[in-house]
Amino acid sequence: MADPVLIVGSLALDDIETPIGRQRDVVGGAAYYGALAASLFAPVRLVGVVGDDFPQEALGLLASRGVDLSGVETVEGGASFRWSGRYHTDMNVRDTLDTQLNVFADFNPVLPPQYRDSHYVFLANITPSVQLQVLDQIEPEAFVAFDTMNLWIETARDDLLKVMRRANLALMNDAEVRQFAGDTNLVKAGEALLRTGPQYAAIKLGEYGAMLVSQRTRFTLPCCPLAHVEDPTGAGDSFAGGLMGYLAWAGCHEEETLRTALAMGTITASRACESFGTTALVDTTAEHILERYEMLLSMTRFNPLPEDLPIISSQD
Amino acid sequence: MADPVLIVGSLALDDIETPIGRQRDVVGGAAYYGALAASLFAPVRLVGVVGDDFPQEALGLLASRGVDLSGVETVEGGASFRWSGRYHTDMNVRDTLDTQLNVFADFNPVLPPQYRDSHYVFLANITPSVQLQVLDQIEPEAFVAFDTMNLWIETARDDLLKVMRRANLALMNDAEVRQFAGDTNLVKAGEALLRTGPQYAAIKLGEYGAMLVSQRTRFTLPCCPLAHVEDPTGAGDSFAGGLMGYLAWAGCHEEETLRTALAMGTITASRACESFGTTALVDTTAEHILERYEMLLSMTRFNPLPEDLPIISSQD
Repeated sequence: MADPVLIVGSLALDDIETPIGRQRDVVGGAAYYGALAASLFAPVRLVGVVGDDFPQEALGLLASRGVDLSGVETVEGGASFRWSGRYHTDMNVRDTLDTQLNVFADFNPVLPPQYRDSHYVFLANITPSVQLQVLDQIEPEAFVAFDTMNLWIETARDDLLKVMRRANLALMNDAEVRQFAGDTNLVKAGEALLRTGPQYAAIKLGEYGAMLVSQRTRFTLPCCPLAHVEDPTGAGDSFAGGLMGYLAWAGCHEEETLRTALAMGTITASRACESFGTTALVDTTAEHILERYEMLLSMTRFNPLPEDLPIISSQD
Repeated sequence: MADPVLIVGSLALDDIETPIGRQRDVVGGAAYYGALAASLFAPVRLVGVVGDDFPQEALGLLASRGVDLSGVETVEGGASFRWSGRYHTDMNVRDTLDTQLNVFADFNPVLPPQYRDSHYVFLANITPSVQLQVLDQIEPEAFVAFDTMNLWIETARDDLLKVMRRANLALMNDAEVRQFAGDTNLVKAGEALLRTGPQYAAIKLGEYGAMLVSQRTRFTLPCCPLAHVEDPTGAGDSFAGGLMGYLAWAGCHEEETLRTALAMGTITASRACESFGTTALVDTTAEHILERYEMLLSMTRFNPLPEDLPIISSQD
């Protein structure tokens, strides 16, 4: 039996407009995408809050996939977190049109006692002070990954630094890493990030893939090439969920395992992009994962140097 | 003895401003960077035009590295092509401040007879009609790579399409591929590009690396991580030169060789960024190349899937 992954974050209803179309009341939120992706590999323990407008079927779907919902609070008469966004023709760019925190404004995660021994913890993008609150309820030896955003880097830097000191893996995109470090050079920015605490940073590069950096090593992966992208919402959260789910399944977080986990996150993120909301992610099969993993291997493989390479022999 | 690489393009004097500093009259131009990079691996046959303001030492340096200059015309009393640009704090972005074509305006490349049997040809970024003029002077079985730019995609599309029909390898950056294809999805844009003729496209992704696409396959490589970037001018041309030089050395252009060649181009491009102008590129040693090749291998290596992966077994 794989270790469970504890996931803490938003459960939301999204209004999404992409060049492909528009959908309202799409079930999402970072923790929802993350839980679905992680559930492909390991049991999940979910912590979140919804209003009674959140569809019961959506929670039922999670339960049917081995997600423990005892940490999900439903506020009677409350409204769920809502996000509304519009993607540009170049779907790497989006505008947030509206954010309504609703019941999420008072999110005060209290872990059910049976969650507290979780060895793999994903703190999705929430206020760093709330992430700290979760860290106070888990065991110090847990492997902790956290996500964040430009807003917290700007407005809650002190709390964010406290999270970083206690976390093992930072999950940020390249713009966030640059903003955090105040350095446009991603190599130096990544180094600065690691000096704040985490042993690893998994830097999301959008359509250019992802990068895993540690003090000594560096690993890069491309995206799974997709000719059809419907809605990138939740891709980063699905990346995190797939990555952490794989680590929990492997029960280990040394670098070789993290590299494979980065590939799993890349694959679950690619699935998330192929439909509005979580439809394609939910429909992910073992074949999808195996096929895309092989594709990533073949897309990145090249030969060692020929031994007879006469580099600049004419100048030597 | 390796096959020679024929390189046709600009030899220039650049005024360059980057966050690191400013330098005037820096010897450069696409063909100059390309020739230096290619000369690390193979003899080079150069075709270009300069004014008598172009430093003799710069031509002497090329000659000392096995670059045949019999195709380089010096116009007495003429001024060399001049480019002036300023890089932003984020050095992925630059503004062209001034371009003076000077003697390059009448560039009318006539290949010395001994150049005409070249098997590896790199048409650097010049007007497609001039690229066509070169194609008319070489043997049809030559392996031809071409570069281009947004201006020609916009203003000389018909000629560019003729170049594409006759070329083997398109060397463009991601923005150019998207612009050419009128599609922001890079997978679809790359496919559209290949339908116009070339068997391969090497798509430069700036700091995110490079991608090699063919009808059936796809290969990606990251950049060499550089904590110190002084001046990215000529990186794309050095990429092309290193790539084509390696192919010429290998005497072959099947995909495995192209993958290694893409790594060589990535390495020569990284060297070009480490100094103003060509200083670091010129100082490139066998050790630099071997070390960075090993680094690229280690940065991209990950394990095959474990056989016991119980993907979504709970749902099956």
